[in-house]
Amino acid sequence: MKKRIAILGSTGSIGINVLRVVKELKAQFEVVGLTTHKNLRVLKKQIEDFHPKMVAVQDLSSADRFRLKKKVKFFKGMEGIIKVATDEEVDLVIISIVGASSLLPLIESIKKRKEIALASKEPIVMAGELIRKLCNDYRVKIIPIDSEHSAIFQCLNGRDVKEIRRIILTSSGGPFRLTEKKKMEKIKPEEALHHPRWKMGKKISIDSATLMNKGLEIIEARWLFDFPVENIEVLIHPEAIVHSLVEFIDGNVLALLGITDMRLPIQYALTYPKRYPTNFKFLDLTRVKTLNFEKPDFKKFPCLGLAYEVAYRGKSFPCVLNASDEVCVEAFLNKEIRLTQIPHIISKVIKRHKPIDLEKVEDILSVDRWAREETYKIIKEELKCL
Amino acid sequence: MKKRIAILGSTGSIGINVLRVVKELKAQFEVVGLTTHKNLRVLKKQIEDFHPKMVAVQDLSSADRFRLKKKVKFFKGMEGIIKVATDEEVDLVIISIVGASSLLPLIESIKKRKEIALASKEPIVMAGELIRKLCNDYRVKIIPIDSEHSAIFQCLNGRDVKEIRRIILTSSGGPFRLTEKKKMEKIKPEEALHHPRWKMGKKISIDSATLMNKGLEIIEARWLFDFPVENIEVLIHPEAIVHSLVEFIDGNVLALLGITDMRLPIQYALTYPKRYPTNFKFLDLTRVKTLNFEKPDFKKFPCLGLAYEVAYRGKSFPCVLNASDEVCVEAFLNKEIRLTQIPHIISKVIKRHKPIDLEKVEDILSVDRWAREETYKIIKEELKCL
Repeated sequence: MKKRIAILGSTGSIGINVLRVVKELKAQFEVVGLTTHKNLRVLKKQIEDFHPKMVAVQDLSSADRFRLKKKVKFFKGMEGIIKVATDEEVDLVIISIVGASSLLPLIESIKKRKEIALASKEPIVMAGELIRKLCNDYRVKIIPIDSEHSAIFQCLNGRDVKEIRRIILTSSGGPFRLTEKKKMEKIKPEEALHHPRWKMGKKISIDSATLMNKGLEIIEARWLFDFPVENIEVLIHPEAIVHSLVEFIDGNVLALLGITDMRLPIQYALTYPKRYPTNFKFLDLTRVKTLNFEKPDFKKFPCLGLAYEVAYRGKSFPCVLNASDEVCVEAFLNKEIRLTQIPHIISKVIKRHKPIDLEKVEDILSVDRWAREETYKIIKEELKCL
Repeated sequence: MKKRIAILGSTGSIGINVLRVVKELKAQFEVVGLTTHKNLRVLKKQIEDFHPKMVAVQDLSSADRFRLKKKVKFFKGMEGIIKVATDEEVDLVIISIVGASSLLPLIESIKKRKEIALASKEPIVMAGELIRKLCNDYRVKIIPIDSEHSAIFQCLNGRDVKEIRRIILTSSGGPFRLTEKKKMEKIKPEEALHHPRWKMGKKISIDSATLMNKGLEIIEARWLFDFPVENIEVLIHPEAIVHSLVEFIDGNVLALLGITDMRLPIQYALTYPKRYPTNFKFLDLTRVKTLNFEKPDFKKFPCLGLAYEVAYRGKSFPCVLNASDEVCVEAFLNKEIRLTQIPHIISKVIKRHKPIDLEKVEDILSVDRWAREETYKIIKEELKCL
């Protein structure tokens, strides 16, 4: 029997790769649903190629412009995305919506006890504690798509986290690993968008440049694996061959290695718990020759320290970090602020925040809103100071 | 309840480390039996420290000299070793006898359905097919102690070998990785005994210098994991931090890393399937900094090719390789032959061998005897030629 899948955010870089994997494993999967924010052109092409039963367009004005000849169920808005995710014909929901918009579909998918493959880190960062609780209550396992978390997931392979001493997240160090600290403030969006190892979306590329991406991954790992943040470490590994490591209490260390192709963790998330052959290039360590490792530079990349700070403080702090970072990245891409201002502004927002317990979605959304507004405010203040 | 253990070969380098581990995990283990070939001095000390209920000395004349005040059951000869291994009070048998002498105790331990932790590679090399069949018939799992096979065992973690594309055994490259090929024949036993990464017994040190150790490990992996030899590869990795790797059919690669301390795989074999904390140094990749990988040099280390050859040809060939190598190593240590003559002589013995199916222990022992005698003969012929 084919696994029936819905891909939320199918027109993004992860979504497109999910469909490449599905195409190679036609016999295993049936694409039942696709959704996009507003990329109608790509969505149309995907409908032609994969014949889903239903699609959704999140952006309402784009949805209203959407015309399609084929007979496909069509939904719009966030409500539409959730309809596709929770449809009873869907076995596995792949969530690859960028940013905070993935929160609600994730929660509803858990409540419907879907199998879930998650590429978006934001919902876990915003609402990790709540999502962990929901997963426990509904006995749902989230399979991570992120290469680092997929690595940890594969190293754990169902083992008890009590046997784990440390989770070690690797980071390529981003495009500015070798850049002098004082030159960091002159960096332009074009430079920051060029990642040395992975071709990715804009938001995640900037987050990789500030190492905020790794920071978000720390928080994500903390809740995905229900693991104390003080035992989660970051290791700079420029070759990006070792995707992450797990150190056991007895000193043995498991590492997951692979070429830097996101189809690898994607396929594993889709086929889990099975594995199927791929036709990708295989890793040849005799060609890679050398793997390097070094400590992260917390001074040059203050986002990393901020992420640890909010992870330790818990409550609504991670949610604030996540929202504030999204706004800052947008502002940086619009050339309103410098790259080095991102941690500076987020830190200010964190300082102004009065933490609350996040018990329901409304709490999260209201903290998210507050943090965004506060960030806009601070950006404006900073602009005036210039 | 404590796990009741017997250590066969407790006075060797592995055996001594097993007891170091046991001492740290006193609450988990009770030492029921100890055996030695003829190291009475160390055995006496171990009896004082660990109070076993029974001991055995394999060498008969040593056994006759053995005097002990404490009330300990005492056995002698191979029969005695097997008595200790198969005693009904023993839960776990740790087999760390050097060389072919471990074959019979291993087989008898399987037949008594003991838990088995195996450090000796020779019995699997000599009689891999037979032992695999016995393990299947008696549903016994052998937990490897060898760091490479422990690594693979930990990477597999019970997964189906059908999901595995390659097993990659790492090798430090031995003490002569950087030695010019033409200088290999001048190497003295003292130099060959000095391994750059591991402190080990004499036989295994010489085997590491010729890479025959890795060759034997190929054959061992083939039968321990019931995996086709054509998919077992050797990767030179001088730092000896990555202890081995497993590549899945989907391109993901799991690697086991750790400091080079044999107590690590020993403890895992003892506590399997659980893990307990250790007080060893933990691996710090930011201090190691760089891991290097390269292809093995089959021309400089012909033992590697010989091992593949016998593994492919199967039947009694691996048994011949194993026996012939033991004799050659002894002759090298006695300065009767040069290091480079070891593969040369073994190759001659292999050429003269008429393979048979190994169906029972007697077959193995007779091939083993034949190969030893043939090797002595060739060594004598070579000596005459000098």
